[in-house]
Amino acid sequence: MRASGIITLLTDFGTRDAYVGIMKGVALGICPAARLIDLTHDVPPQAVGLGALVLRNAVEYFADGTVHVAVIDPGVGSARAPVLVVTDRALLVGPDNGLLAPAAAALGLRAVRRLAREQFFRHPVSDTFHGRDVFAPVAAHLAAGTPPDAFGPELPGLQPLDLAAPRIEANAVRGEVVYVDRFGNLITNIPAAALASFHPPGVSVRIARMTLSPLASTYAAVAPGAVVALIGSWRMLEVAVRDGNAAEQLSAGIATPVTVVGE
Amino acid sequence: MRASGIITLLTDFGTRDAYVGIMKGVALGICPAARLIDLTHDVPPQAVGLGALVLRNAVEYFADGTVHVAVIDPGVGSARAPVLVVTDRALLVGPDNGLLAPAAAALGLRAVRRLAREQFFRHPVSDTFHGRDVFAPVAAHLAAGTPPDAFGPELPGLQPLDLAAPRIEANAVRGEVVYVDRFGNLITNIPAAALASFHPPGVSVRIARMTLSPLASTYAAVAPGAVVALIGSWRMLEVAVRDGNAAEQLSAGIATPVTVVGE
Amino acid sequence: MRASGIITLLTDFGTRDAYVGIMKGVALGICPAARLIDLTHDVPPQAVGLGALVLRNAVEYFADGTVHVAVIDPGVGSARAPVLVVTDRALLVGPDNGLLAPAAAALGLRAVRRLAREQFFRHPVSDTFHGRDVFAPVAAHLAAGTPPDAFGPELPGLQPLDLAAPRIEANAVRGEVVYVDRFGNLITNIPAAALASFHPPGVSVRIARMTLSPLASTYAAVAPGAVVALIGSWRMLEVAVRDGNAAEQLSAGIATPVTVVGE
Repeated sequence: MRASGIITLLTDFGTRDAYVGIMKGVALGICPAARLIDLTHDVPPQAVGLGALVLRNAVEYFADGTVHVAVIDPGVGSARAPVLVVTDRALLVGPDNGLLAPAAAALGLRAVRRLAREQFFRHPVSDTFHGRDVFAPVAAHLAAGTPPDAFGPELPGLQPLDLAAPRIEANAVRGEVVYVDRFGNLITNIPAAALASFHPPGVSVRIARMTLSPLASTYAAVAPGAVVALIGSWRMLEVAVRDGNAAEQLSAGIATPVTVVGE
Repeated sequence: MRASGIITLLTDFGTRDAYVGIMKGVALGICPAARLIDLTHDVPPQAVGLGALVLRNAVEYFADGTVHVAVIDPGVGSARAPVLVVTDRALLVGPDNGLLAPAAAALGLRAVRRLAREQFFRHPVSDTFHGRDVFAPVAAHLAAGTPPDAFGPELPGLQPLDLAAPRIEANAVRGEVVYVDRFGNLITNIPAAALASFHPPGVSVRIARMTLSPLASTYAAVAPGAVVALIGSWRMLEVAVRDGNAAEQLSAGIATPVTVVGE
Repeated sequence: MRASGIITLLTDFGTRDAYVGIMKGVALGICPAARLIDLTHDVPPQAVGLGALVLRNAVEYFADGTVHVAVIDPGVGSARAPVLVVTDRALLVGPDNGLLAPAAAALGLRAVRRLAREQFFRHPVSDTFHGRDVFAPVAAHLAAGTPPDAFGPELPGLQPLDLAAPRIEANAVRGEVVYVDRFGNLITNIPAAALASFHPPGVSVRIARMTLSPLASTYAAVAPGAVVALIGSWRMLEVAVRDGNAAEQLSAGIATPVTVVGE
C-alpha cells in the first residue's frame, strides 16, 4: 500500500483553541506535501465511543493509503499505548483505547504496532499533548512514505471498544440509538444487512412509543414534520423528521431503544 | 474557462459530524490535486435563503474557474434536480432549489445542466446524501478538467429564490435585514448602488426606532458602543455597533425593516 | 529566510459566515500554491489579548518562513497601522494593536513594516474588512516570495500588549489564569521557567481556595474527577480536572489568582 499523502484528523479538541492547527504545523514541517483533512474536532470531550463511530463511518470514503489520525485521549501520559494500525486500505494512528478499533475492523485489520521509536516524535514529548508530539509527527512520517514497521514492535491486537450490539431474534431486531447528528437524525446500531431477511421495506420500526412503517428510502418520502425510518447514509437504520429534528421531536437520544419487527 | 483546481464547499452540515470530511475524501479520490476551501458549514439547517446570500457574497473572491459546491438540500432524494451551472467566471454545483440562483446571477449565468450521467457519481448513490455521492464527485471531475457538457442535458434555467427586494421610492429606499453575522452586524438587502442618487453619506437610516445619520465609512467612526450605519464589506447597507453586537443592542434581526431617507 | 508557502490564519471571524473562506479565496488568487492552515477563528469577538496568547502559543510549531496572519481588529479603518513583522523564524501580518506582539517576541523580533504599498492590496480597499483587502493579499505575496521590504517603510516597533505578568517573590510566584481552553483547563501566566528555582514538583499551587501539591506530570496522575496542577502543553502552569472541566468545577476563569509556594 503506497501512501496517498492524505492525513485525516479526528479529535475532541474543538476549534476554539489552536491545538488542531498546531498538530497541522508539526505535520507539515515533516511532510510539506501532506493533504490535511479534518473529519471533526467537535466530538464531545473524552467521548471515545462516539468518536470511534464517526471515524468508522468516515474512513471508507478516502483513497487507499490514507493516514487517519484520531486523538480522543483521556489517558494521555498514562499506560495506554500509542499505536499505529495497518489495515488493508489505510493506516490509523492514535491511542489504544478503543477509538481505532471499529475503523480498523471495517478496513480489515492486518497489524498493530506500538509507537516506540522516539526519533519519529517531536521533542521534548509532553505528557499531556501526544497529538502534537507523537501522533501528528508519526502520521506525517507515514504520509511521507516511512514504512509502518519502522515505528515499533508489533502488538497482539487492539483494545476493543465496548459497543452496544443489536440483538437479532427470529422476527425482530432490538437495537438502540448510538449517534445523533447535527440535524437531530437518530442513527441506530442496526445495520442495513441485519434487516435483509425481513424483506424491507415491509417492516415496522418502534421507537419512543411510535411505530413507523414501511421503511422509506428518502426523507422526502413523508410530509414535512413527519417522522420517517430509513437506511441512511451511514447504511444503518436511521430515524429522522423531514425538515425537522427527530431527537427533539421524539425526545430521543443516545441509548433510546429501537426495535424492528418483520412482516 | 480553465479549471482553477479550487473547490469551495458551503453546506448546512455543521462540523460536529464528519459529513464534510467525507465529501472531501470523495473529491480527493477523484481529483487528488484539488484545493478544498470551506466557505461555511454552519448555515442553519435547511436555511436555503441564508446559504444563498452567503454564497453570492463569497464567490466573487475566488479565481476564475473555481468550482463552488453548495448543499443545503431539504428535498434530497425527491424531484428537485441536481444541477451544474456554468457562469462567466466559475462553476456551481448543487441542488436546484434556489440555493445557487443569486450566485449564478452575480457571476453571469450562461447555462444550467442537469446532473444525469451516473458515471460521474459515487455508487451506490444514497437517497439521503447527494453531497457525498453526487455533488462532491461531480465537482471533483470538473476541477480535474471534465467539460461541463459531459454531465447531462441543458435545462431552461434555475429555480429562482424568493428574496426580499428593497423598494426604491423617490426619496427613500425601504428594505430589511437579511443576514446577521457573527459580530451581530445587521446586513440589509439595500445595495450601495441603490443609495448613489441620494448623495450618501448625507442620508438618514431608520431602524428599530433609531435614526442614524450620516453614513459612516468605518465602525471606528463612532464611539465604542454607538450604533453606526455604513456600506459594509458585503457592499450592502449594514448597521453595526462599534465593539458591540447590533442585533442584541437593537433587538433586531432578519426581516427587521430598514428605511433610508435622502437629504 | 525563504517562504515555506504556509499561511496560518487566526481571527475572531467565527465560521458561521464566509469571511474566512473569502480571505482564503483572495490569498489563493495571488499564491495558488499556498498552504492555508486555520489556527482558530473562534476567538471571542474583539478579544485581542486572548488571540495574542493563542497566536504566541502556536507559531513555534510551524516551519521557518511561515506567514502568520492574525486579524482581531476592532479598530479596522481607523488610525491603527496595518503591519508586517519580520522575526527570526517567521513573518506576521495583521493590525498593530498588540495582537502580534507576544508572538513577535517569542519568535525573535527583527523589524516592523507599515503596509503602505497599495499595489499589494485588493481594490477597492474596504474600510471594514482589511482581512480580505489588505492582510490576506499581503500574506499571499509574502508566501509567494515577495521580500518584506517591498511592502512599506520600517516602523520603530510594535504596539505592546498589556499582559498580566506574574509576580516573582522570594518563595512564591503570584499569577493568574489567562486562558481557559475547550476542556476547561485553566492556563496561567506562570511559565515553567519561573518555577525552576522552587524545585518542582515540590511546590504547592493555590487556586480558588484549594491547595494542590505536588505538581504532576500528566492528567492521569490523579483519580478521575480530581484537580491536578501541572506544566501543560503551553509550558505554563495549568490547573485541570482529570476527565472533567476545571473551570466549571472550581468556578474559576480568566483573572482567577493563582499562587505557587515553594517547599
